[in-house]
Amino acid sequence: MDAYLPKPEHKFTFGLWTVGNPGRDPFGEPTRARMDPVHIVKKLSDLGAWGVNFHDNDLVPIDASTAERDRIVADFKKALDDHNMVVPMATTNLFGHPAFKDGAFTSADSRVRAYALQKTMQAMDLGAEFGAKTYVFWGGREGAEVDAGGVMNDGLKRFRDAINFLCDYNHDQGYGYRFALEPKPNEPRGDLFLPTAGAMLGFIATLDQPDMVGVNPEFAHDTMAGLNFAHALAQIIDAGKLFHVDLNDQKMGRFDQDLRFGAENLKTAFFTVKLLEESGYDGPRHFDAHALRTEDEGGVWSFAAGCMRTYLILKEKAARFAADREIQDLIRAYAVTDPDLDALGQGYSADKAAKLKSMAFDREALGNRRVDLERLDQLTVEILMGVR
Amino acid sequence: MDAYLPKPEHKFTFGLWTVGNPGRDPFGEPTRARMDPVHIVKKLSDLGAWGVNFHDNDLVPIDASTAERDRIVADFKKALDDHNMVVPMATTNLFGHPAFKDGAFTSADSRVRAYALQKTMQAMDLGAEFGAKTYVFWGGREGAEVDAGGVMNDGLKRFRDAINFLCDYNHDQGYGYRFALEPKPNEPRGDLFLPTAGAMLGFIATLDQPDMVGVNPEFAHDTMAGLNFAHALAQIIDAGKLFHVDLNDQKMGRFDQDLRFGAENLKTAFFTVKLLEESGYDGPRHFDAHALRTEDEGGVWSFAAGCMRTYLILKEKAARFAADREIQDLIRAYAVTDPDLDALGQGYSADKAAKLKSMAFDREALGNRRVDLERLDQLTVEILMGVR
Amino acid sequence: MDAYLPKPEHKFTFGLWTVGNPGRDPFGEPTRARMDPVHIVKKLSDLGAWGVNFHDNDLVPIDASTAERDRIVADFKKALDDHNMVVPMATTNLFGHPAFKDGAFTSADSRVRAYALQKTMQAMDLGAEFGAKTYVFWGGREGAEVDAGGVMNDGLKRFRDAINFLCDYNHDQGYGYRFALEPKPNEPRGDLFLPTAGAMLGFIATLDQPDMVGVNPEFAHDTMAGLNFAHALAQIIDAGKLFHVDLNDQKMGRFDQDLRFGAENLKTAFFTVKLLEESGYDGPRHFDAHALRTEDEGGVWSFAAGCMRTYLILKEKAARFAADREIQDLIRAYAVTDPDLDALGQGYSADKAAKLKSMAFDREALGNRRVDLERLDQLTVEILMGVR
Amino acid sequence: MDAYLPKPEHKFTFGLWTVGNPGRDPFGEPTRARMDPVHIVKKLSDLGAWGVNFHDNDLVPIDASTAERDRIVADFKKALDDHNMVVPMATTNLFGHPAFKDGAFTSADSRVRAYALQKTMQAMDLGAEFGAKTYVFWGGREGAEVDAGGVMNDGLKRFRDAINFLCDYNHDQGYGYRFALEPKPNEPRGDLFLPTAGAMLGFIATLDQPDMVGVNPEFAHDTMAGLNFAHALAQIIDAGKLFHVDLNDQKMGRFDQDLRFGAENLKTAFFTVKLLEESGYDGPRHFDAHALRTEDEGGVWSFAAGCMRTYLILKEKAARFAADREIQDLIRAYAVTDPDLDALGQGYSADKAAKLKSMAFDREALGNRRVDLERLDQLTVEILMGVR
Repeated sequence: MDAYLPKPEHKFTFGLWTVGNPGRDPFGEPTRARMDPVHIVKKLSDLGAWGVNFHDNDLVPIDASTAERDRIVADFKKALDDHNMVVPMATTNLFGHPAFKDGAFTSADSRVRAYALQKTMQAMDLGAEFGAKTYVFWGGREGAEVDAGGVMNDGLKRFRDAINFLCDYNHDQGYGYRFALEPKPNEPRGDLFLPTAGAMLGFIATLDQPDMVGVNPEFAHDTMAGLNFAHALAQIIDAGKLFHVDLNDQKMGRFDQDLRFGAENLKTAFFTVKLLEESGYDGPRHFDAHALRTEDEGGVWSFAAGCMRTYLILKEKAARFAADREIQDLIRAYAVTDPDLDALGQGYSADKAAKLKSMAFDREALGNRRVDLERLDQLTVEILMGVR
Repeated sequence: MDAYLPKPEHKFTFGLWTVGNPGRDPFGEPTRARMDPVHIVKKLSDLGAWGVNFHDNDLVPIDASTAERDRIVADFKKALDDHNMVVPMATTNLFGHPAFKDGAFTSADSRVRAYALQKTMQAMDLGAEFGAKTYVFWGGREGAEVDAGGVMNDGLKRFRDAINFLCDYNHDQGYGYRFALEPKPNEPRGDLFLPTAGAMLGFIATLDQPDMVGVNPEFAHDTMAGLNFAHALAQIIDAGKLFHVDLNDQKMGRFDQDLRFGAENLKTAFFTVKLLEESGYDGPRHFDAHALRTEDEGGVWSFAAGCMRTYLILKEKAARFAADREIQDLIRAYAVTDPDLDALGQGYSADKAAKLKSMAFDREALGNRRVDLERLDQLTVEILMGVR
Repeated sequence: MDAYLPKPEHKFTFGLWTVGNPGRDPFGEPTRARMDPVHIVKKLSDLGAWGVNFHDNDLVPIDASTAERDRIVADFKKALDDHNMVVPMATTNLFGHPAFKDGAFTSADSRVRAYALQKTMQAMDLGAEFGAKTYVFWGGREGAEVDAGGVMNDGLKRFRDAINFLCDYNHDQGYGYRFALEPKPNEPRGDLFLPTAGAMLGFIATLDQPDMVGVNPEFAHDTMAGLNFAHALAQIIDAGKLFHVDLNDQKMGRFDQDLRFGAENLKTAFFTVKLLEESGYDGPRHFDAHALRTEDEGGVWSFAAGCMRTYLILKEKAARFAADREIQDLIRAYAVTDPDLDALGQGYSADKAAKLKSMAFDREALGNRRVDLERLDQLTVEILMGVR
Repeated sequence: MDAYLPKPEHKFTFGLWTVGNPGRDPFGEPTRARMDPVHIVKKLSDLGAWGVNFHDNDLVPIDASTAERDRIVADFKKALDDHNMVVPMATTNLFGHPAFKDGAFTSADSRVRAYALQKTMQAMDLGAEFGAKTYVFWGGREGAEVDAGGVMNDGLKRFRDAINFLCDYNHDQGYGYRFALEPKPNEPRGDLFLPTAGAMLGFIATLDQPDMVGVNPEFAHDTMAGLNFAHALAQIIDAGKLFHVDLNDQKMGRFDQDLRFGAENLKTAFFTVKLLEESGYDGPRHFDAHALRTEDEGGVWSFAAGCMRTYLILKEKAARFAADREIQDLIRAYAVTDPDLDALGQGYSADKAAKLKSMAFDREALGNRRVDLERLDQLTVEILMGVR
């Protein structure tokens, strides 16, 4: 049981906007009062979390005076110190205010684009005050419903200009941030630009300083598009671009649900945890989710505790999977490895090509080989259900 | 009317496997007889197509003898000559035979991976004989249903090794191919690796010779994942990676339908044609679709003629859109352009950053600005419906 | 041009909540001020609409005093009279207030269920004051995210009890309403009960007074589930249950977009209009949609005008389709009608069964018959695009 | 462990077409040889299944002579006797042969409709020979891609005529079948008529003998449309129409995967088993799924064993859930039950209505009530994962 108790060493983090979500939705008013960030820090710390993240306006209202800002910052710093909590990541709210109704960095309006840059630099300053080392960009309104407007054509150029500029600002200020870009296919816009983890990787390759920039994949976001989140994660890891991760859950093909981690897709959650734990990723495990709108504050903390506990349960299951002899035997048998053949296909030479072209392969035998994947999958499901 | 008559200058192409599709599906037997490739060439030429593409085994059966192969090749070359048709693209069938049941370049079996390389080199040789200049890779079975097998973890490395090897082979043989990688989210595998156009762009950035490799996006494939195909196309164009394009249609969130171009998503088809025509893309307009299974051969040619005709109708509509004064006025008004502000946000300097940070923006005014996108979209729909 | 000018005889209606939507979404604040219902009536009338519909609280705030209610009602009646507008439909807001956070008629709490009944009776009284003859039930929060709670098991019984009770109330009060139940698959709840038009038909069959109850299908709602809305409409018409209709648009498999009618799925919109016009349905054509959040009030009226205009354009296209000789010839040829054979299969007798069982059918010939659906579909698309 | 051993008393059944599926898909040839039905019976019996189901042509080829038919039937009966297996359900293949390429009962061709009736009567005769008591109708090709053809308008009438006719035939022959209609949203047709469980319930209400007809819901089919299968099942049970059930698994919004039961959506699978076990349903638990195409025959039996074993594991978890005190306390607390209030809302009287209308409800208190659904859901997930 104790094995599932969250501790700071697990690096679990939450956003102020997640546990602080008041339960408003497109069809109804808030069901919970706004929570004080200081209160959130205390409660998360009590539950075993390591840190807390924020958009600029989660902490400092968009219309706060300088004096108010300074007081809020001081209070929040004190709370972090009191409760031994860190701020590993910060980000900008470029989607809540009507000014950003048609995008921020990709807006059709020069003034909005300039304002978005200004607001982001200020938010980077704020995050740096708290020692954040990852800066997330979620282009909440970077997208379109009306492609006739033409933003689709030059939006990516504008987004690139902005990120390039801010990379320089980061360097110039010595903040040492790593940028993590977060994709989402749609909502709130009809179609968001750079809709998937893959699209972000493709975009990063076009930047001036690609090494400073990675991905912040979110479980629910690729899942909304019906994609396998573990596969997306594996591609990001393969590319060396896993700079942050947002964990939650979601049913495919519907509105952004931001469910408690593990609440729907247990199997994909399992492979997600397995990948994170086995890939050497040592950054935050950030839960970008919120309690159901039906819940009161008590339900919020049940939700937060549940995210972390399910992660730890799945982590133990990943260890069990790795130690299960029958499973490991099946995996070994599944991979038919011939180092000589493999060597032929790596590092081209004309000779290797000629050799490969002259070989005889027994197609029918290859078609008949046993793979036993049904058995392997069944054993995996049984690990998941706790019956082995 | 004549304006919609397909001609070779429009560069319309079809695959042998598209018009030659016999109408088999998971629940039923073929409804059409296999068509002779020579017959296909003649018919497509009569309809106004420019070229024809093939997988190796569309032309030469997998078990053909060398003599059979040579005879087939000679007959096909003659047909191309007789009908003034070209072969701009070729590709490999790495998914039909049971040998590839669990992948080709990413298979867990060294022998399958080696055989896939061999088969691809031979197919590249075949394509080169016909002067093909684009080589497409669709990883039909590169994917998984059972992630416990672990291919998810090293599959991309294997795929990269294969593409790197084949880039060298291409160079070594002097074939001058440009490689075009084709993404698809799922089907026939539960989840295919590199599921979206974006994922392909991300993958290309990890290759040894990224300049040799681009994307072959397919309208239906990104649409299956509920993504906006025109947006995917715009990102590929932005990245300079549009090496080929597969046009067809599809309803979102369901099996691969490969419908006649324009049959479902007229608006996205319109923006697709508009992008292709206005971006400077001068490659083939390839229809990777097939007639409904209900059709006989007559229906197949109706289908093929319809793809091309709809493209040309939409092309004319794109010109009409560009010439429509009210539409162009709306687009101009929508873009609020301030060159001084824009200059501040491009090409970082500490001074620019300071200037931007000190500016005052009127958030409320920006939130209230009129964009008139509903009107613009309505006019676009009216162009589409032919009432303006 | 004049052919597309909306007039009261077309029976176009809008909800106060549609054109009055302030543009708030889960990620951002309202972009438009609340509009006075009296103003809405005037503007809609100017645009050619026939009527306006409302939820109780669209017109009368939930916390209005009796005096305020009476004043609002009087003002609104006067506006309707002044502008010759009708209120054909009314409905209840059982989703906005936190009291309904976990359902209304299906809530796990007796008090909420009782309050929902009370609120609905009062809203029925309000609608009757305005002469509404259709009463719509959209179970905005009737659903669940947590099936462990068990509402899934008895929710339908509770919903049935409520509808049965309210049917009696309707009769008792002599209001003469026809009830129209509106399905939706999800959002705001993770899963809504009775998620599709079909589910509603099934539910209606279990009611005490099924004749009083029909369906209010919404284009976007069945489309969210990836279903063909025209097919849903056809089933409702077949069952004699089309009591009202909500027209709008939507991309499949995503959040509830409530787009302008015809904005996305032109082909399905065309078949929807064709069915409505040819089925003898003479009720309101209600647009349950709203302007994009990017728009100001001017955009709202562009949106409203666009809904009606597109409907009328599609109506003319339906007439053109019916008059197109080639299309009608194709349809006639497609239907191979043999009255004798048909008679054998209708109205069972042992003799007919024996006769049918003894007949010889030429399977191969049936498999080879020409259907020409590709051609027919292409001509339909050309009607849609205005090139025939 | 023994608790998870399948036995005939569990009433597990498979179709000949499920374990017999040869692994062909739209992009590849079969990977497994056809299995003899007699062999299948033996193997399923060894694994603990109770029965086996078939389409007419799973057992008797469509072109078999009478003598062949009789021999096959005799052999199969002997195998059933030898292995103590039953045939509880039978059905007709109205989708495999090209004759049905555009539908069967709803075809536009009178001859196809008549042939479909004939084939079904013969298949009902065949099923009756084996004592089948449930007759399933899956309208594999009843649907359309081209709505211009008009089948959408009269297809349901034709389908109704056919079912009415066959109900009479059933009665006339004294077969005692209960008919179970099986919905599916799409594939192989672009859109299938009667796409969801709800649509089937609605359709049944329009039949001449609705009592003879119920639903055969399939887990994967409603899931393809992104619907919650447990909710669909609950509606069918509420309507008294659960006549058969098809268990398998599927990711939402994609092609028909027919995965091993429990392979993807463990939580919905859990609520499905819980509903079946607690609703009093005592019919077959039929697995309408097939092994992955990667598998050889050994993999097929792993697949079949896995379906049954996972069912039994989930059944035990349902019992554990029912016995878990904390869970049951949460459920009780969640339901705020006031019998007096409930009585007011059931069985209308003017007096009750008046009383309800005059009551005062504390909206704010209702909005603030604690529901603790996050906690309840977390405990459910922990039951599923075997950690409580």
